[in-house]
Formats: sequence, C-alpha cells, structure tokens
Amino acid sequence: MKNSYNTLILPDVRQMLTDDDRQGLAEFCAALHPAVVAAVLEELQADQVWRILDNCSLDRRVEIFEYIELPQQEELVEALDRERLSDLLEEMAPDDRVDLLGRMPHERVDDLLPLIAQAERSDIRKLLSYEEDSAGSIMTTEYASLPENITVREALDQLRNQAPDSETIYYVYILGENRRLDGFISLRELILARPEAVLSDVMERGVISVRVDDDQEHVAQELARYNFIAIPVVDNANRLVGIVTHDDVLDVVREEATEDAHRLGAVEPLEDSYLETPIFTIGWKRGVWLSTLAVMALFTANVLDYYQDDANEDRFRFMILFLPLVLAAGGNAGSQSATLIIRTMALGELDRRKSLRITAREILVGILLGGLVSLIGLLAARFWFDLEWTTAAVIASTVLMVVLLGTFSGAILPLLFHRIGMDPALMSNPLIAALIDVLGVIIYYNVALATL
Amino acid sequence: MKNSYNTLILPDVRQMLTDDDRQGLAEFCAALHPAVVAAVLEELQADQVWRILDNCSLDRRVEIFEYIELPQQEELVEALDRERLSDLLEEMAPDDRVDLLGRMPHERVDDLLPLIAQAERSDIRKLLSYEEDSAGSIMTTEYASLPENITVREALDQLRNQAPDSETIYYVYILGENRRLDGFISLRELILARPEAVLSDVMERGVISVRVDDDQEHVAQELARYNFIAIPVVDNANRLVGIVTHDDVLDVVREEATEDAHRLGAVEPLEDSYLETPIFTIGWKRGVWLSTLAVMALFTANVLDYYQDDANEDRFRFMILFLPLVLAAGGNAGSQSATLIIRTMALGELDRRKSLRITAREILVGILLGGLVSLIGLLAARFWFDLEWTTAAVIASTVLMVVLLGTFSGAILPLLFHRIGMDPALMSNPLIAALIDVLGVIIYYNVALATL
Repeated sequence: MKNSYNTLILPDVRQMLTDDDRQGLAEFCAALHPAVVAAVLEELQADQVWRILDNCSLDRRVEIFEYIELPQQEELVEALDRERLSDLLEEMAPDDRVDLLGRMPHERVDDLLPLIAQAERSDIRKLLSYEEDSAGSIMTTEYASLPENITVREALDQLRNQAPDSETIYYVYILGENRRLDGFISLRELILARPEAVLSDVMERGVISVRVDDDQEHVAQELARYNFIAIPVVDNANRLVGIVTHDDVLDVVREEATEDAHRLGAVEPLEDSYLETPIFTIGWKRGVWLSTLAVMALFTANVLDYYQDDANEDRFRFMILFLPLVLAAGGNAGSQSATLIIRTMALGELDRRKSLRITAREILVGILLGGLVSLIGLLAARFWFDLEWTTAAVIASTVLMVVLLGTFSGAILPLLFHRIGMDPALMSNPLIAALIDVLGVIIYYNVALATL
Repeated sequence: MKNSYNTLILPDVRQMLTDDDRQGLAEFCAALHPAVVAAVLEELQADQVWRILDNCSLDRRVEIFEYIELPQQEELVEALDRERLSDLLEEMAPDDRVDLLGRMPHERVDDLLPLIAQAERSDIRKLLSYEEDSAGSIMTTEYASLPENITVREALDQLRNQAPDSETIYYVYILGENRRLDGFISLRELILARPEAVLSDVMERGVISVRVDDDQEHVAQELARYNFIAIPVVDNANRLVGIVTHDDVLDVVREEATEDAHRLGAVEPLEDSYLETPIFTIGWKRGVWLSTLAVMALFTANVLDYYQDDANEDRFRFMILFLPLVLAAGGNAGSQSATLIIRTMALGELDRRKSLRITAREILVGILLGGLVSLIGLLAARFWFDLEWTTAAVIASTVLMVVLLGTFSGAILPLLFHRIGMDPALMSNPLIAALIDVLGVIIYYNVALATL
C-alpha cells in the first residue's frame, strides 16, 4: 500500500514543482498524514524536498522531516544552510534530533551547536553522551510531569500547557525533589478521577522504570511485558531523565530482530535498511564472514588431507559419498539449536537458572533427531547405495554423533557467549556449521578406521 | 530482572498459601502490577493459582489472568468449573478471550457459550470466525467511539462512561450511520480543544485504517509507520469493526520475527515459546526439516557416486579436500542473500518494483564475494596445499560459480515464493545450502573434467 499510494501522488507533486505551484505544495504538506508526505519526499532530490517543505509551517516541516528515514535525513541536511538547519534541529524531538546529529560529521555539529538555544544544546550534549543501544540513547526528554500536591483539575490545566512540548501526555510522571520519580498517573485515570482529588491520593507509587544505562533490548522487553505506552528512564538516584515511547520500542524490536537475523545468516548487521546500504558496504559486511568461513573450510580440507591415504583404500571409497550428509546433518542440527536458543534469549525468556534445563533439553532432542537422521543414513547406505551393514553402521553412528555434537554446541555456544557478555547471535548458523564440519570429519574417519 | 523479582516474592507467596493467609494473598494480588503477579503465578500449580486469585475482585482476577502466557492460561482453565470460567471469560478483553477459546477443545467451548451473555457470545462467535493471522484475529472490539455532532465537553463526558469498557480512550473514532468510520480524534486533541467546539469541526477526516482481512504483518507495518497507539480495522464497507492496539502489534512483531528466524534456521515455527513447547513437538518440528535436508544430502551423494570413477583417478584426488569449501561457500553466500531479502520483506520495505533492482544488486555482490572467496581458494590451493596452478584454478573458478549461484538463488527463491503467495522464509538457509550442494558438486566435477 505504501508504495502504490506514493506512486499515485508522486506525479502530481512533480508537476506542482515544475509549475512552482506553491499553494498546491502547501496543501500537499498539510492535508496528508506526515508519514505519507515523508514517503513521497523520499522519492525526490534534496533540493526538491526543501522547495516543497518551504511551503509549510516550521512545526509541520519538522513533523514531516521526522518521518523520513535517517540515511535520507542525513542527505537532506547536507543541502541545508546553518541557520535553517539549526531552526529545524531546535524544533525536532530530542531523540530524533540526536539520532541525526550522531550521524553528522563532528565539525558540522560543533559548527551548529552555538546557533541552538542553550537549553536545547545541553539536552543534546547529554543525550549524545549515552552509550549506543542504551536506554539513554533511545529515550526522549520531552515527557509530561507534575508535582504530587496539586488537584486533578489543576493537573489537567497544567497538562494542557505541557502538551505541545511532550511526546505523550497519556502517561504523567509525578516528581518529588530533584526530579525524583515518586509516582505515576495515566491521563485515563486523571479523566476518571474527581477533579478535587489531590494527585498524591490517586497516583500509583512504586513506578516500574528502567535505568538509563540498561540495554535497549531490556527496555523493549519491559515495555512489552507491561503493555505500556511509555516507560520512564531513571538515573541511579531514581531521578527521571527521560521516557522511551512505544513507537521507539517497536523500532528497537524490529531493528534487533533484523540484527539477529543478519548475524544468524552470517552477515555483519547493516546499520541502515538493505536497500539504503551501498553495495560495497554489503560486500564488506558479508565478505568478512564469508572469508572466515572459507578459511574454516580449509581447515576441514586439512583434516581430510590428513586422512587422505586411508581414504584412498578401496574399502573407504564410500566415505566421500556420505561426507555431505555427515556435514549437513551436524551443521543443520546445530543451526536449529542455535536459532531456537538465540531467539528465546532475544525475547527475554531465558535466564541463568534455565541454562542447564535448556542444555539437557537440547541433548535429549539431539538424541531423538540423531536417531532419526542416522536411521535415514543407515537405510540409504544399505538399500540405496548397496553398502554392507557394517559400512552403513559407520555412517549411521557418525551421523548420530555429529547431530548430537551439533545440538550440543548449537545450544552451549550461544549460552556461553551470553554468559561472557557477548552477543550470542555472533555464533551464527554457518559458523556453528563450519566448526562441526571440522570435528565431523575427524569423527567420521576415526569411526571408520576403528570399525572397518 | 523479571525472574529475580519472582524469586524474591515466590517463597512468601508459598508460605501464605501454606498458612492459608487470605489477607496476605489479597494484598499480594492488589499491590503489585498485574504483570508481576502473573509472572509469580506462572511458577505455581493450577489449584494454587486459583486459591490465590479467589482472594481478589473479578476485575483484578481477569486483569492478572490476561497477563499469563496462553499455554498456561489453557492449563489453568482446565481446572475451573463452567460457572467460574464463564464469569472469567465474560470479563476478559475480547481479543484475549478468543485467543484462549481458540485453543480450548470445541466441546468445552460449545458447553460454555450458553452461560455467556448474548452480546458477548455473538462477539466471540464473530471474532472466532476471522482467519488466523488476519487483522480480525488480533483486534479487539472494545474501542471508544463518538458521533460527530456533539461538543468536546459532551465528548469528554461520554468518554468517561466508555472508559471501563474500552481498551484505550486515547484514540476516539467518530462514527456515522451504520458505524461508518468518518473521523478520528485523539484524547490529546480533545483536551486541547475548546469545550464548546463540535467534534465534526475538530476531528481528522480520511482516517488511516486497515481491512479486517489484511495480514497481521501488514497491520504491524502500518501501525509502525504512523507511530499510532492503535489502528482502526474496517470491513469492506468502511464500517469500524475493531481496533488493534500497539501492545498487540508489538507481540505480532516479536512473533513474526521469531517465526521467520525459526524458518530460516530450518525449524517449523513453534506456536508457543521454546521453553513451553514439549520436547517431542520440538523434535517433530525439527525432524521434518532435518530429514528433508538429509534426503537432499543423499542426492548429493548420488551425484558424487556418479563421478566416483573419475574421482578415483590420481589427478582428481585433490577434489575431495576442497569439497567442504565448495559446498560451504555456495551455501553460505546463499544464506546471506536469503537472510537479507527475507528480512527486508518482513520489514515491509520491499515491493514488486524493487525485485529487479535487488536481483541485480545480489548478482553484483555475488561477483564481488565470489571473487574474494575464489581468490582465497586459489591461494590456499597453490600455497597451502601445494597444488598446481591449473588445479588451483579449477577450485577457484568452481568457488566463483557456486557463490554466484548461491547469491542468485538466495535472492530469487524468496522473491519467487513471495510472488506466488507463499512464505519466503520457507526457503530456509539450510534448504538453499542443500540445493546448492547438489548443483555445486555437478559444477565442480564438470569444471575439473573439462579442464584437467
């Protein structure tokens, strides 16, 4: 739908640009949802975009601009002079603003900051200082807050004043001295409460919050768990420093899922969307892993070389035929385990207590699956490839062992990586497969040499 | 955090159960966030859970119950008599209620429905009738709606009445005749508007909505695109039939990402969380794919068998050594392409117009990567394994070809599956790898036979 919609509007907009139809362009900006306008603008050149946006109010311009994808925002601001850019930045939501500034060259940012009002400037510096992927790096500082000693009627009046500068007024935080987070009330409850009631009597205490240095994945899990519209972010003295809203969490969840999928598929995660990423960047992010995996395959080659003399004997001829099965069975079983466990971790459903249970589970599943695939191998070797029962048994028992090895390492390696504080998804499926390839060949030849 | 929190409270709750401390249990239910209570209850037996929940109001009981995971909800209701269960169901949110009913045995549902009030019953029947994974199947029918001819003051009064039965009152839909969706206003705008203004003058027209039979992935993409708290669902006469809220979309996004990850890792997607799924179900969901892939590996064995006589010649001895490299390079490159493209589709960033561009892109990247890995193969064959240049060239050119084949099929197969309306993630990474294994071996031997 997104694109069919754009395709319909785009020619009209281009025509208006050619005719310099300012009124038409102003209407285009004002009438449609800013996200729709943004999607149309993404199809145009930077100078065209600014010619269009010049026809609307600064508020509207910022609103539309915030819906444009980051890489394109970056391109657009390159075409903008200092004054107009600082106006834009001053009006932008604090979280969107620092996302953009974080991608701009340092010199340009240093050049811009003096033009931005003092309060905004220190807000920018603060937000820029938080570590990437922390709660601080995704939160906004524009939240609604009230003191506890006012009435509900007064609260509603104050909220009306705060509305223009708040990302949401549906959740209101009650602050004590030094912005200490003492309570919480939703606009729904405020509307339902008696107008004369004092906030301290109707607010909830013991507010659920996240810490400013928590990982964004934890923030997403907490917000998802409580079905919140926004979750407050506090520093280590329980002072409110910002909020993370549901839409930003949705973006985080989508980003993290993409990052995990990329890692599992042995691609260094792309920062921008696939279509926005230059070909050479993609080549690099894939090439790194592909080369690593190629080198690992060469170690497997080395192992095969070691057994080469034995392999050339007639009675070992069959072994090469079943090499793909041995390698695939172990690698695939390992990929399955790693995928299941990494995804369980990503959903926040795994903790230390459960690691042992999971490993035990995977070993059991490994026995089941190993039994199944080795039976397939046994029957195929005997009846499809007409090998002797003993030879078929070598294949079957090797398959059983590599599948067991696969499930075990597929389960244990991500858990281990998680334990030592590294991203478990670094244990990509092809990497686990490559590890098992090396070991699989060793097992295969040793079983064969011992048996035949 | 989730679990450490539970671990702290759980012993106290068990003690209260032993002491039959009803007041303590009532406080436990009332004082904590229902999501926290639910997490604690998930550690207990069904009869213990009901003994605890008997100490709180029906409203609260339902609120807590709705936070319990579905498989456990299912277990819990098995222990409940008809009357108490129908009370619970009557109070539950319509979307959560049908999720549970959809998992219960048909006879039990038929047995229960007569006990449920007429209005609720027809709502249940309606919601149960929508197709799985459609907008209708995840929406709730408890939304706030108003007519357009009342004032803002009257609107706020009416909203207060609707609040207890609405999932959210932050978004209000303005309905005309026959529940036709004519407009929209947020509570924020209502609060900021003049109390005497008439809704038709302040509401937004041209409301963005989804259709009741749209796929839930599309619903998620639309809500994410517009940063909505909820998105209205209409039938084909533009009548409002429900809303999908941000928290349900977040669940959908997490579920869909998990499903895709599982498919990519060659696991039939699990319906419940990994830890809630019985071992035999996991074994089955993995075994299906593992067996398929094993059979495909046997086809590769067959191909190898076909070239067996040639392979036994001395000058072809080296070939087995580099078999793992040839197979891995193609499979891994294919996995990378498939992962990138399937994820791009999942994020809704891909449309038909772009399919050609993507295929062209992948071929270019394939040339880059194929060049890189074949260079590694060439150098390793010549200097690590001391092969002749011509032999090394056979390896290098085969690697180049399988990588190209891998990127091309990794890109084209998911696009093709998408085009014919099947889940592109069915083209799992191991499946693509297995396909390329078969073709890779054929290429390898033919290049070698033609060259040496």
